[in-house]
Amino acid sequence: MLFTYDLLARKRDGLRLDAEEIGALVRGYTDGSVPDYQMAAFAMAVAIRGLDEGETAALLHAMLHSGAVLDWSHLDRPTADKHSTGGVGDKVSIPLAPAVAACGVAVPMISGRGLGHTGGTLDKLESIPGRGLDGAVGGFQTRLSLQEFRAIVGRIGVSLIGQTEEIAPADRRLYALRDVTGTVESIPLIVASIMSKKLAEGAGALGLDVKVGNGAFMKNEADARRLAHAMVKAGAALGRRVTAFLTSMDRPLGTHIGNALEIAESIAILHGQGPADTRALVCRLGGEMLRLGGKVEDLPAGEAMIARALDDGSAAERFRLVVAAHGGDPRVVDDPGRLPGAPEVQAVLAPHDGLLVAIDAYAVAVAALRLGAGRLRKEDAIDPRVGFVLCCKPGDAVRRGEPLAFVHAASPRDAQQGAAALLAACHIDRERGPLTESRLWIDVIHDEISAV
Amino acid sequence: MLFTYDLLARKRDGLRLDAEEIGALVRGYTDGSVPDYQMAAFAMAVAIRGLDEGETAALLHAMLHSGAVLDWSHLDRPTADKHSTGGVGDKVSIPLAPAVAACGVAVPMISGRGLGHTGGTLDKLESIPGRGLDGAVGGFQTRLSLQEFRAIVGRIGVSLIGQTEEIAPADRRLYALRDVTGTVESIPLIVASIMSKKLAEGAGALGLDVKVGNGAFMKNEADARRLAHAMVKAGAALGRRVTAFLTSMDRPLGTHIGNALEIAESIAILHGQGPADTRALVCRLGGEMLRLGGKVEDLPAGEAMIARALDDGSAAERFRLVVAAHGGDPRVVDDPGRLPGAPEVQAVLAPHDGLLVAIDAYAVAVAALRLGAGRLRKEDAIDPRVGFVLCCKPGDAVRRGEPLAFVHAASPRDAQQGAAALLAACHIDRERGPLTESRLWIDVIHDEISAV
Repeated sequence: MLFTYDLLARKRDGLRLDAEEIGALVRGYTDGSVPDYQMAAFAMAVAIRGLDEGETAALLHAMLHSGAVLDWSHLDRPTADKHSTGGVGDKVSIPLAPAVAACGVAVPMISGRGLGHTGGTLDKLESIPGRGLDGAVGGFQTRLSLQEFRAIVGRIGVSLIGQTEEIAPADRRLYALRDVTGTVESIPLIVASIMSKKLAEGAGALGLDVKVGNGAFMKNEADARRLAHAMVKAGAALGRRVTAFLTSMDRPLGTHIGNALEIAESIAILHGQGPADTRALVCRLGGEMLRLGGKVEDLPAGEAMIARALDDGSAAERFRLVVAAHGGDPRVVDDPGRLPGAPEVQAVLAPHDGLLVAIDAYAVAVAALRLGAGRLRKEDAIDPRVGFVLCCKPGDAVRRGEPLAFVHAASPRDAQQGAAALLAACHIDRERGPLTESRLWIDVIHDEISAV
Repeated sequence: MLFTYDLLARKRDGLRLDAEEIGALVRGYTDGSVPDYQMAAFAMAVAIRGLDEGETAALLHAMLHSGAVLDWSHLDRPTADKHSTGGVGDKVSIPLAPAVAACGVAVPMISGRGLGHTGGTLDKLESIPGRGLDGAVGGFQTRLSLQEFRAIVGRIGVSLIGQTEEIAPADRRLYALRDVTGTVESIPLIVASIMSKKLAEGAGALGLDVKVGNGAFMKNEADARRLAHAMVKAGAALGRRVTAFLTSMDRPLGTHIGNALEIAESIAILHGQGPADTRALVCRLGGEMLRLGGKVEDLPAGEAMIARALDDGSAAERFRLVVAAHGGDPRVVDDPGRLPGAPEVQAVLAPHDGLLVAIDAYAVAVAALRLGAGRLRKEDAIDPRVGFVLCCKPGDAVRRGEPLAFVHAASPRDAQQGAAALLAACHIDRERGPLTESRLWIDVIHDEISAV
């Protein structure tokens, strides 16, 4: 108790804690001897005073080792994983994981569920129906045990599951506590939370997509850059090769927003089709994972290899195996019509001629959430069928009466409200003004690993 | 929940909270809807970011009104109280309360117990034996109900009790929480804690003794000054007249340290005797209470009136009534030999001739605590009999073999250890060097009340 008091008082006063102290605190929190109220005080002190690189690495190390850390050294190939800080329409992990696996780097991926305005990879995958006749029995399973996870990765080189009880239990508790104590917005706490889960998977390399913009968690570039640097450094401190891409999230990614709809776009990407921005992210992040895994010499070679896997059917074939291994119906990969469809599909028409200057990503996300595609609280149910399919992107000239998008909804009333919200998110200039420049790629922060 | 998150996040970011927000938080904490972990995060944010005057007053107001606030408007005389931030040998409240009451200002005093190195008024009073033949039955009762407290103050103008369940319950919970979350050292939290209890007593005026030095909670003058200003301002914001004296706590106050021993010194003071520094504090703080209560025009008149009450027997007579009203044996006031005595009393002899330059107050307090006079944890029992009686003060010339002090202990072994510790706390220069200047009175911070 005196130890914890002293530790909290020193962080309160902006002093540095050493790795042993941070380790003892996290161990105490994990075994229950440090109660929530002491951890809440610690989280607030960290949110205000910050942690330096060494302290952040110590917190990450302690949270990582609060549970099981997987080991893939028995595999005959390297391992790599990818994480995105979350964006609107960001389904990149779904085509990327099988594409990377098809290129010979195993992808043991533990993902999260959607909360707030961004969707979760698990929710999207769970919209894939099962093999029952009515497509409703079973479906894609993401709540697998670590044993099943190990078996699937061993067999087909890729699996996507949710966080289990064994993975970083200290993070699971702290994450819930931060959610109610005003301490979500803290870079060292975010770093330790994301990286402890990702490093517990045991992948040797990690590609990060740090999204910036009004549809992202990080609204400005400076914060996103600080987060990216902190994650790369913390990973390096623990001996993992990490690259972070800073990418723009001012407009929705790709064309489809919503759970089953994003699976449909993912399938198009896996068939060498789909929107250019989603494909570009899959190729570059996947290519960097191949490079980090030692499969290729440089990023361009990696990107080309991923593009080939998308175009030659090998990525799609790997996704069929993934779907089947998780209890889903692999026929979905060749017939997206088997995905659950919304009863109401309505076109959203341009009200006048003009130039589509912007599509507000955050507003689209909130509209999709209202349709039922997301959840505000952990216990909320989501509707896999609903969302939007965009027909144009910023920079396009639009004509009155042409569809800007289609809204997929559970009822005519929802469809009408969704259409109005989507329209409000689109900024159409009557006169062609200068387009605000938009770039997908903002920066890349490289693995600064030293010999550890 | 969202409201609390937002409030915590804003204080985390150093923004101002309004009185309604702080009020809602404290009400939620009192009724249990705001859990300990959210209050811990709030306390840490406040400990780091601080609270401005308005926020501090709002927190004080909310904590004060989390429980009962007494009303003395039916009395035929003004009311005043006194609080000390705690020092070594600080027994001032015990002679002061009956002296002020004897001068016509009622003193409804709710006091604390000792924790850490400073003693508590209640522990000292409880060393007074009961009226039973063996002196052990009953004794001075401090755990009275508010109803009994009201009755005693109404009858004899003064009573001293411990905090009850009804008084500032939010403070009782927050105080315990701060103790385990590294948030004790925060001026706005200290102000709200002390003042909420003191103002709940309902006294119209308050004299504060803010102690500075190595034997005090505030080790340096700047911190003590900030605390004194903050308490005076917070009191004024709530319409109470408050004066804070900054006084030195570099040496023990008076001659007696220990529970029954400090009652013995208090009795000497009440008979117009006792050490000059204790008497000076009683007269000045008591005099200021008479001034704040409107009984005298200025402080010198108030001091003179208190001095008269000590010298003419009226203060001692009032203390007899207090002791009797609380179930103690009033004969103690004329025969301190009835107080519990230690089985072992040993002289601590000067090891060589020289000048007694300093007596380390903190070291003496720790030595007394080791003898059993204090408690480190709330549940520790204390021994009323043990402590020290000092025979000389800094500035005195001492001769080898003359007693510096007497140690009162439970066993010969304790006495030996206590004597060694006391000796180590005394700094005797073999050659007469320059004395470091010591002043009891450092400053006074006046009531800045405006028309409220």
